Amino acid sequence: MLKLYYGPGTVAIASHLALAEAGADYEAIEVDFANAAQTKPDYLAINPKGRVPALVTERGILTETPAILLYIAQRYPEKNLAPLDDIHRLAEMQAFNSYLCSTVHVNHAHRMRGPRWASEESSFEDMRRKVKGNMEACLTLIQSDMYKGPWIMGETFTVADCYFFAIYRWLEGDKVDINDYPKLADLIKRMQERPAVKRVLAELGG
Amino acid sequence: MLKLYYGPGTVAIASHLALAEAGADYEAIEVDFANAAQTKPDYLAINPKGRVPALVTERGILTETPAILLYIAQRYPEKNLAPLDDIHRLAEMQAFNSYLCSTVHVNHAHRMRGPRWASEESSFEDMRRKVKGNMEACLTLIQSDMYKGPWIMGETFTVADCYFFAIYRWLEGDKVDINDYPKLADLIKRMQERPAVKRVLAELGG
Repeated sequence: MLKLYYGPGTVAIASHLALAEAGADYEAIEVDFANAAQTKPDYLAINPKGRVPALVTERGILTETPAILLYIAQRYPEKNLAPLDDIHRLAEMQAFNSYLCSTVHVNHAHRMRGPRWASEESSFEDMRRKVKGNMEACLTLIQSDMYKGPWIMGETFTVADCYFFAIYRWLEGDKVDINDYPKLADLIKRMQERPAVKRVLAELGG
Repeated sequence: MLKLYYGPGTVAIASHLALAEAGADYEAIEVDFANAAQTKPDYLAINPKGRVPALVTERGILTETPAILLYIAQRYPEKNLAPLDDIHRLAEMQAFNSYLCSTVHVNHAHRMRGPRWASEESSFEDMRRKVKGNMEACLTLIQSDMYKGPWIMGETFTVADCYFFAIYRWLEGDKVDINDYPKLADLIKRMQERPAVKRVLAELGG
């Protein structure tokens, strides 16, 4: 059985949704972020980076959302969660996921994770002021240049949609209104109706 | 023929090295960063994100280093540049590449790209002060927990080594001494002896 370590409200929900969509046999284990368990020896033995998600498989521990998402898609190929038979389309999906992890997630993280990159309270405040605009620029680009419709990658639902859903859950806190991006708002609505998504959200308490 | 758009001193060298290692038929096209060409309409038509690398294929344009590297490995499978037949090892390689793009590259970028995330000169200075320590923490973790040796992924050279080489080239500017990480310094020395690497460095003027 796979074990997914997650923290509430974190990007780990992307991997969680992908596991549910794949019909995987998995257990989701909450890391106690309220008590900073992710920074303590027990969890660092699982993921020395002190971050979530971490996916424990029969062969070891995998980290980093884009890697875990591709792994899940490849482990359950019959679920068609990625364009595995077309290297160009797969690269487009990986490019989308890579953009989310290296740019969008990072822009968001400057709202609450300033101490990763600076030391002064004035810098954190300065960073926080830029988050809304940066996230809006990302969503504009995603809607105009990346989203193919009706799902991120086109006709077929993929793990890229799971990843985008994780980002969506941060937008309200970032003071960004998904309804300003009607194609993306519509995608989120359709995701919320998927049985696997409903199941994960219920499991996490909404 | 593939076309790779790159900027001097950027992460694009990772994709450039992978193309050379793959024996690909490619042309490398320099984007004039000195005149901010990456922010102007001609280049934004190629990559609306205004970043490098961008790889032009027969079927379209690919962006984001981890996606391009996997694409090159999959396009030239006979070169064995990624563990394509083992989804768990591939996920480990993708996790490494994802860590470089979402954490290591981002830490480095706070030295010169502060305006992406803040507005005040005092914040940029504050950010710059943290770069050396953050990069050192990353290298410590890479050497102790990720590097398998003699190459990043173990016995076989992969595109992850190309990506690490791109990061290495920033370390001097970040005031980090690769020789403090002897296993990684040794890997870099062996990379510099590879014919494809020598050819790319010569092509770029060293």
